[in-house]
Amino acid sequence: MRVVVPFAAETPKTRLESALTPAERSTVARAMLADVLRAIVDAGHEPTVVSTAPLALDALDLSSDIAASTSIAVDNRSLTDAVNARLPVLETDGDEGETESDDATAAPDPVAVVMADLALATPDALERLLSASADVAIAPGRGGGTNALVVRHPEFRVDYHGTSYLDHREIAREVGATLETIDSFRLATDIDEPADLVEVLVHGREGDRAPARLREMGFELDGRDGRVGIARSEDRATK
Amino acid sequence: MRVVVPFAAETPKTRLESALTPAERSTVARAMLADVLRAIVDAGHEPTVVSTAPLALDALDLSSDIAASTSIAVDNRSLTDAVNARLPVLETDGDEGETESDDATAAPDPVAVVMADLALATPDALERLLSASADVAIAPGRGGGTNALVVRHPEFRVDYHGTSYLDHREIAREVGATLETIDSFRLATDIDEPADLVEVLVHGREGDRAPARLREMGFELDGRDGRVGIARSEDRATK
Repeated sequence: MRVVVPFAAETPKTRLESALTPAERSTVARAMLADVLRAIVDAGHEPTVVSTAPLALDALDLSSDIAASTSIAVDNRSLTDAVNARLPVLETDGDEGETESDDATAAPDPVAVVMADLALATPDALERLLSASADVAIAPGRGGGTNALVVRHPEFRVDYHGTSYLDHREIAREVGATLETIDSFRLATDIDEPADLVEVLVHGREGDRAPARLREMGFELDGRDGRVGIARSEDRATK
Repeated sequence: MRVVVPFAAETPKTRLESALTPAERSTVARAMLADVLRAIVDAGHEPTVVSTAPLALDALDLSSDIAASTSIAVDNRSLTDAVNARLPVLETDGDEGETESDDATAAPDPVAVVMADLALATPDALERLLSASADVAIAPGRGGGTNALVVRHPEFRVDYHGTSYLDHREIAREVGATLETIDSFRLATDIDEPADLVEVLVHGREGDRAPARLREMGFELDGRDGRVGIARSEDRATK
């Protein structure tokens, strides 16, 4: 399946600014993107990174098999517009005015959209989403967001503003699309804020880039109080 | 399956104190407990509330079928000790010194432990956990916690202090128990902090008590900025 991975190349992860310098945020954002691409390819699918600015595939330092399955497109429109431009449309035979013809049995190819900061994504979690049979399947994020979805219905369109999970449920209802919600902690965990970095260190997989980069920057788990946080070794924190 | 639900009856949900009065915190904690009990019973299992202080079943206002399947025990020990006292032990024939006999093929009944603040728990999510075949199955919470687990191995014991998810993985390894991690957003979401209340309003099920109580207190979704928050109507906020 074609999997669109939107990526904000120019101002990555601004809400991590209290924990990371701009250069570090860029490094971590690219490492998470590389981990997401690896999970998608390992699940047997072909990712297209839709980047807000030119992005060299070489700069992601992907292994050769992952790089060979990955393509990059540049689109500086809003997230909503860039995604909608890539969702399934009704197949037509080329004649004008026949988009609503009775040839609609030829279902369009489904398209998945997976955010680039789902650092905990695994092939198993993605496969639960990508194999859902509903017209629209959504993996919600915390706070009512939409972290990943699969669209098989030609009339469904996204709107990422606000409580997008609830909005997407309503949009599916309006166009008569069946909907399934995928209950996944890994897909619900987008890495936005410093507290989220804990999840990368706890749940990162063998070979993942993001936990490796964070550890190189001096981050480690800190379990002194109730919910576990992160600590940074002092000699690194002033960089 | 027997499902232990630890409940802190005396000081419920202190980390919600910036959003809720003590009386409101108690109301919301009991509503979440009632919702968790309903999900467990609807999944076909029998919950035992292990409360730190006497708790009247009547005060939870459960429907009669849920009340009939629920029992309450009082145990004022620490969470770790109260849970460990209820985990499976090796069956013996009563003769001293034979706990390690070759009669170990009689596997003990499994025991599940589900936290009382998993307000998003559904029968489906619980069943994914409870039907896992591993010796120990864990649904991690955010921040490296253990929100729910099933124990089928007679030597496994819990330790809820610190990064308990990682500690429990290590304890399972030490006793030779197989381990499975359950990837569930619903089970990963314990309601600890004001931001977590958003999840109750977004993902609560038809008939759930906790979202109903929060709405009665004036809380509603507020999507004005990026990640959705909650707002409280002003006439209620000063109670």
